Amino acid sequence: MEHSNKSHLLDRDELVRSLVSGERRMHELPAVIAPEEAAAVRRQALSEMTGASLDHLGSYSLDARKASHRHCENFIGAAQVPVGIAGPIPVNGNYANGEFYLPLATTEAALIASVNRGCAALRRSGGATVFVEDVGMTRGPVFRTSGIIESRALVQWVEVNVTRFEELTASTSRYLRLREVSSTIMGATVFLRFRFACGDAMGMNMTTFAVDRIVREIIEPETGVACVAISGNYCVDKKPSALNFVLGRGKRIHAEVTIAADVLRKTLKTTAAVLAEVQYRKNLLGSIAAGAMGFNAHYANILAAFFIATGQDVAQVVEGSLGVTCVEARDNGAIYASVYLPDVPLAALGGGTGLETQREALALMGITPDGAEVGAAVMRLAELVGAAVLAGEVSLLAALSSNELASAHERLARGTTALTRNADFDCKKPR
Amino acid sequence: MEHSNKSHLLDRDELVRSLVSGERRMHELPAVIAPEEAAAVRRQALSEMTGASLDHLGSYSLDARKASHRHCENFIGAAQVPVGIAGPIPVNGNYANGEFYLPLATTEAALIASVNRGCAALRRSGGATVFVEDVGMTRGPVFRTSGIIESRALVQWVEVNVTRFEELTASTSRYLRLREVSSTIMGATVFLRFRFACGDAMGMNMTTFAVDRIVREIIEPETGVACVAISGNYCVDKKPSALNFVLGRGKRIHAEVTIAADVLRKTLKTTAAVLAEVQYRKNLLGSIAAGAMGFNAHYANILAAFFIATGQDVAQVVEGSLGVTCVEARDNGAIYASVYLPDVPLAALGGGTGLETQREALALMGITPDGAEVGAAVMRLAELVGAAVLAGEVSLLAALSSNELASAHERLARGTTALTRNADFDCKKPR
Amino acid sequence: MEHSNKSHLLDRDELVRSLVSGERRMHELPAVIAPEEAAAVRRQALSEMTGASLDHLGSYSLDARKASHRHCENFIGAAQVPVGIAGPIPVNGNYANGEFYLPLATTEAALIASVNRGCAALRRSGGATVFVEDVGMTRGPVFRTSGIIESRALVQWVEVNVTRFEELTASTSRYLRLREVSSTIMGATVFLRFRFACGDAMGMNMTTFAVDRIVREIIEPETGVACVAISGNYCVDKKPSALNFVLGRGKRIHAEVTIAADVLRKTLKTTAAVLAEVQYRKNLLGSIAAGAMGFNAHYANILAAFFIATGQDVAQVVEGSLGVTCVEARDNGAIYASVYLPDVPLAALGGGTGLETQREALALMGITPDGAEVGAAVMRLAELVGAAVLAGEVSLLAALSSNELASAHERLARGTTALTRNADFDCKKPR
Amino acid sequence: MEHSNKSHLLDRDELVRSLVSGERRMHELPAVIAPEEAAAVRRQALSEMTGASLDHLGSYSLDARKASHRHCENFIGAAQVPVGIAGPIPVNGNYANGEFYLPLATTEAALIASVNRGCAALRRSGGATVFVEDVGMTRGPVFRTSGIIESRALVQWVEVNVTRFEELTASTSRYLRLREVSSTIMGATVFLRFRFACGDAMGMNMTTFAVDRIVREIIEPETGVACVAISGNYCVDKKPSALNFVLGRGKRIHAEVTIAADVLRKTLKTTAAVLAEVQYRKNLLGSIAAGAMGFNAHYANILAAFFIATGQDVAQVVEGSLGVTCVEARDNGAIYASVYLPDVPLAALGGGTGLETQREALALMGITPDGAEVGAAVMRLAELVGAAVLAGEVSLLAALSSNELASAHERLARGTTALTRNADFDCKKPR
Repeated sequence: MEHSNKSHLLDRDELVRSLVSGERRMHELPAVIAPEEAAAVRRQALSEMTGASLDHLGSYSLDARKASHRHCENFIGAAQVPVGIAGPIPVNGNYANGEFYLPLATTEAALIASVNRGCAALRRSGGATVFVEDVGMTRGPVFRTSGIIESRALVQWVEVNVTRFEELTASTSRYLRLREVSSTIMGATVFLRFRFACGDAMGMNMTTFAVDRIVREIIEPETGVACVAISGNYCVDKKPSALNFVLGRGKRIHAEVTIAADVLRKTLKTTAAVLAEVQYRKNLLGSIAAGAMGFNAHYANILAAFFIATGQDVAQVVEGSLGVTCVEARDNGAIYASVYLPDVPLAALGGGTGLETQREALALMGITPDGAEVGAAVMRLAELVGAAVLAGEVSLLAALSSNELASAHERLARGTTALTRNADFDCKKPR
Repeated sequence: MEHSNKSHLLDRDELVRSLVSGERRMHELPAVIAPEEAAAVRRQALSEMTGASLDHLGSYSLDARKASHRHCENFIGAAQVPVGIAGPIPVNGNYANGEFYLPLATTEAALIASVNRGCAALRRSGGATVFVEDVGMTRGPVFRTSGIIESRALVQWVEVNVTRFEELTASTSRYLRLREVSSTIMGATVFLRFRFACGDAMGMNMTTFAVDRIVREIIEPETGVACVAISGNYCVDKKPSALNFVLGRGKRIHAEVTIAADVLRKTLKTTAAVLAEVQYRKNLLGSIAAGAMGFNAHYANILAAFFIATGQDVAQVVEGSLGVTCVEARDNGAIYASVYLPDVPLAALGGGTGLETQREALALMGITPDGAEVGAAVMRLAELVGAAVLAGEVSLLAALSSNELASAHERLARGTTALTRNADFDCKKPR
Repeated sequence: MEHSNKSHLLDRDELVRSLVSGERRMHELPAVIAPEEAAAVRRQALSEMTGASLDHLGSYSLDARKASHRHCENFIGAAQVPVGIAGPIPVNGNYANGEFYLPLATTEAALIASVNRGCAALRRSGGATVFVEDVGMTRGPVFRTSGIIESRALVQWVEVNVTRFEELTASTSRYLRLREVSSTIMGATVFLRFRFACGDAMGMNMTTFAVDRIVREIIEPETGVACVAISGNYCVDKKPSALNFVLGRGKRIHAEVTIAADVLRKTLKTTAAVLAEVQYRKNLLGSIAAGAMGFNAHYANILAAFFIATGQDVAQVVEGSLGVTCVEARDNGAIYASVYLPDVPLAALGGGTGLETQREALALMGITPDGAEVGAAVMRLAELVGAAVLAGEVSLLAALSSNELASAHERLARGTTALTRNADFDCKKPR
Repeated sequence: MEHSNKSHLLDRDELVRSLVSGERRMHELPAVIAPEEAAAVRRQALSEMTGASLDHLGSYSLDARKASHRHCENFIGAAQVPVGIAGPIPVNGNYANGEFYLPLATTEAALIASVNRGCAALRRSGGATVFVEDVGMTRGPVFRTSGIIESRALVQWVEVNVTRFEELTASTSRYLRLREVSSTIMGATVFLRFRFACGDAMGMNMTTFAVDRIVREIIEPETGVACVAISGNYCVDKKPSALNFVLGRGKRIHAEVTIAADVLRKTLKTTAAVLAEVQYRKNLLGSIAAGAMGFNAHYANILAAFFIATGQDVAQVVEGSLGVTCVEARDNGAIYASVYLPDVPLAALGGGTGLETQREALALMGITPDGAEVGAAVMRLAELVGAAVLAGEVSLLAALSSNELASAHERLARGTTALTRNADFDCKKPR
């Protein structure tokens, strides 16, 4: 209808004007206008205010309604992050078995090439052996007591009431199960750490909700002790921490491969002795010298790319990238390489995994929670993460051991060199 | 032309078939086919192999040629990450002065709402005062010597040759300047840490390149000492480390605000006493109890959203999110709040900042390296990061202090509740 | 008899000569000569070789036979460390109840004076409330496996065999009881952490012995997995570690006191506000800025003095001194202060506690294992440690808050000023 | 005189009675009575109150006057700690060159035997090569500002006033020299770290005094910024800290040795491969798994024994024992072993080094500050510490690699086995 259409156009200009003038805030657009329209109004207002064109941000195919309601307030569009493919990567796991393609969202030249080369090495070495422990998601509220006697009493009271917490937990979600409550007392402060199995979800939100109910409905009313914060930095979420390094959080991932001398030489352009020395002086002594919590070459790179592509909570790369790589020389010039990631929160369901491109990336690896076995999809995902990190780690250590990191970056980052075309693609030319 | 068109179509099917059969690898597509076409071929092959639809990944507006050459090998398309707007945020800095809108790419419900509420509090409090120290980018190669005597000799030799390293550095880029070389000796291992000013770039690649040349052209040939790896985990890149926490890396960011009692009450729904207690028991004691390296509530959330939106290296959120929040009660019921981020690598130029949506996000904040003053654009960006983190931190601490984190998440994550529409939008309802 | 006496003298000169010439080593003195005589021979030889007089080292009253057999090979005498008394200190514990005098062996001027002043403050505040958790002594052997699959199998095998380890443990000592076995897998490496109750002993030796037998008699023969070292630095003994900070080791000690405004003013010459600020900016922010593992003012001082005086293993001050002090302002100008020491190995029996002066120091506090209740003596000792550390901590923080640390040290360390004689002795003058 | 003698006796009983009754406190004995008499009075009173005999504590030869005035308030006597001798140890240093005997005060059976075996291995390997960096003593006061702008202004003001601090420092002691002032800003808190050269003294007291004067006479009056505490835990004294690990404190000590295959076999009963594996899985992976700050086997044991014997500040073993051991396989079955201790405060003068037995222990090693070269004596001492730690480390790692730690402890700790008498004494029997 012409009329409504016209009034609509008028409305839009008017809305833009009101945002530009400051009469309205971004979140104050009328609830009745469609999310994609609201996004357009916001973009137009921002363009007028700042002079910036925002057309690309407006070029998205995702469902604006879902994005703006579930993920992102004041929605204006989508950032596009390039996605490339590494693989196939051969995985011998309990949930993932076979060859998989890895979607990685990154802007860092050479990363995918590097992981890809690692995949080639794994293919020639019988694949990555992987197993994952489902430690579970944690929430760590903090309480204020009158002093150490009450602190001790609270901890003892909690210990005898765990069954009730388990029951309340089960009533909040059929996928959530309370596994353990541990504690630390510091004077008039008590920290509890609730640890949960969460099915295929990452679990941060459902555990927050459950702990909130346990605290508000049971602990506070019955003990009279006040909870100061539902998250007392004793979870610990999105911070590197010794607690999670020691006790684990989310998924605790182990992966390994043994690579023979000829694969080291042909595919990775290195030898066992050189690779083991890079591992020793860089990943062990270097991280010790720096007081680093990560004893690896670049777990964070692979995790960040994987997390963006698959809709994980990207801030959790902070804790997810903690871990220890081992490289040990074996007989006949082979090396044994392993990765250990004790603290990786992951989801196959919920959060950003429901977004369109992210869901496609997961589907590409066969990750689709199908209800057959609760938690199996996210365990499969975790095994793939372990294999991917192993591939990336072996490849970068090999590249460093060949002294070619800089030249590889140089070549690829400047865009002047096409990908090489030999059978074993990798990020380095023969010198 | 029909013919070539047809042959092209034939080619495409044939290429897809060769990928599916494994005859060809993803990176072995003929160099002559256009990047967007190569991406389509890869998507089609992957779909056939896995049954997954990848249409949304193929819905991008970015320049496939640039993306595939500079950022992402085996390019297949783009992940879309929802972007929302927080602000305006008032900033009193040396490079950023005035009000700014913050683009944040996130899938975590309530994050933008929370930052937005922090911005409202800042607007009513005279804005965020910010200053940034340009510590510089570092690279830390590791060397093997014959023992401590040669190790000491190497360090002494380096000290008297710094001028030559400076000159070589200057010859590699007019934006790069060597500032300092420091060292640690551990037996037969020597770590050097080169620290550089990098203009508006983040600098990891250009410093790798410069250090590689310094090592290959000067140090190795003249001393005979072998470099084991150009990056010896003594940089330290993308790992949480005490070294960077103490000495800084990238930008070292300071921001603060004093918030009066009525703003605390009306905008943040809290009081000075409660807020200070949450800070004390959570950010200080909680992080101590957990052996965490971050003494803050959620720097990682804001940084991850900011980094994705603006094309930063997302894996560097790991180190960027280290830092310490202070909240101190002041007279008349006010609080003083500050954030300290000692280790934030940032770019206004290069890397992912050149991608289309990311460039728009930067332009939205007026970040466009214009050559007028080298490094000014990235310093402006760093000041905005400081202000944004301050807003997010104050808001979440306030939310926790109101015991409503769980319910806010509940409401927003399930998409059942529209954004509230009152003047001071935030993630919590009046009780 | 003259003859034997003479031959003896000849022997002595001859023995000295053989040590000086290097014919004999210090430990090669004939087994038949008495330990005190062997010590004299060694001293004489050393004096001849170095020109140093060693008469004071030879002035000891301890039993040379016991010392040289049980504590100290190549025994030459005893170091004399001055012992002073602080107290009485009022303690409200489960094992220690009443007033106690604390023996402290130190060479650091002002330390005892400072603890003493803290005791005075405690006496005027109802005493120190203390409780101790008997976490237990740990040993952490390390194993080499063929890879992660065998690593996991080993851990699972251990879990189902714990009862057998308990039985073997019980057979080695009636005071030793195995409480828990935990583990970490890193690729082809497995760490087990055995945790034991040890009665009144510190337990390092008896647990090493038990773990050695468990490993040699059960784990290695039955699994075929090799133990690389009985102590795999996963215990962790005598190193500061996050593992022990989080999980505890030895005794986990909690102590607290609330001090009223007038006691703060008169005895400690400070106020709640100033004391709380010193705590905040020094013990919390300062230790954070330094990346320190201890969030306290000087636990190590009190522990070192206490450990030397009472015959503890002094090297364990390294882990014992980890911990967190809290100081919180309370109503009416009072403060609440607590100390938390998660990792304090302690003995009331065995090791250096059997030496003469050390046994006297323990007896002075009523610490004498009497068999009535196994473990009660060491728990009493632990409660006294907690109270002593609390007294020292409160006093030094107060001294710092009065800006007088330097002048107190100046006065006392130079020996020019006698102890003050007013009723509330302390290390500071009125201003 | 009989009369005065009698009155004296009466006085003594009277004094004892007044202590027992609580009329007098320990520190309130009349200033005119001699320190040894005061000590006797206190012992007698304590015996009456507690029933404990304190005769051995009263059996000392040290100068009670000096001890009670300079080291130890409320002096009652001395703890006797058994001292044994290890060595001779061959040292190739810049200050210590030749063979030395090491005095070690310990109650831990097998320690001296173990170090002694390490000395034997060093003697057969050309000795320990050592060098020491004199980093210097530090004091880290903390200041409160109005916020980050004043914080930055303070740091900038300090930078331009360093020369004045240097001058004031020089006026407080001719041995003290200010080397550097560094800083960290956290919101309204500023930490300064003053680093000094201290001659032969450890320097804690003289630096505290100098920093106190700099703060009270220059910084506070001229800037108006308040110092909250002269020690802001940013020194960092007697806590394990990343700051000191990275930047060093006191002496930074390096020592190394290369041990041939036959010495490994005959003296240390091990091989290069086994020793390197113990190092790798224990000192590196084990400490990583435990989140430990020390990557070594038992630095703390050697340091504690050395510190007690030579009158060092024993609480500084906490920081002194941080460090990293390296063991690397070399050609022909040899190993290269090094130790690195970045943070060892040491004194050849002042503090406990002036006590009688401690002075003898120092003299035994030729450590006597003679004024010829200021600081040379303490550097010699530091080189000996490095060599001693190296000997102890190599020996324990070898013992662990032979799987005999437990049995050695068992044998020696129970006193049932005499020291072996073969030429290469060590703590293990041939198998």
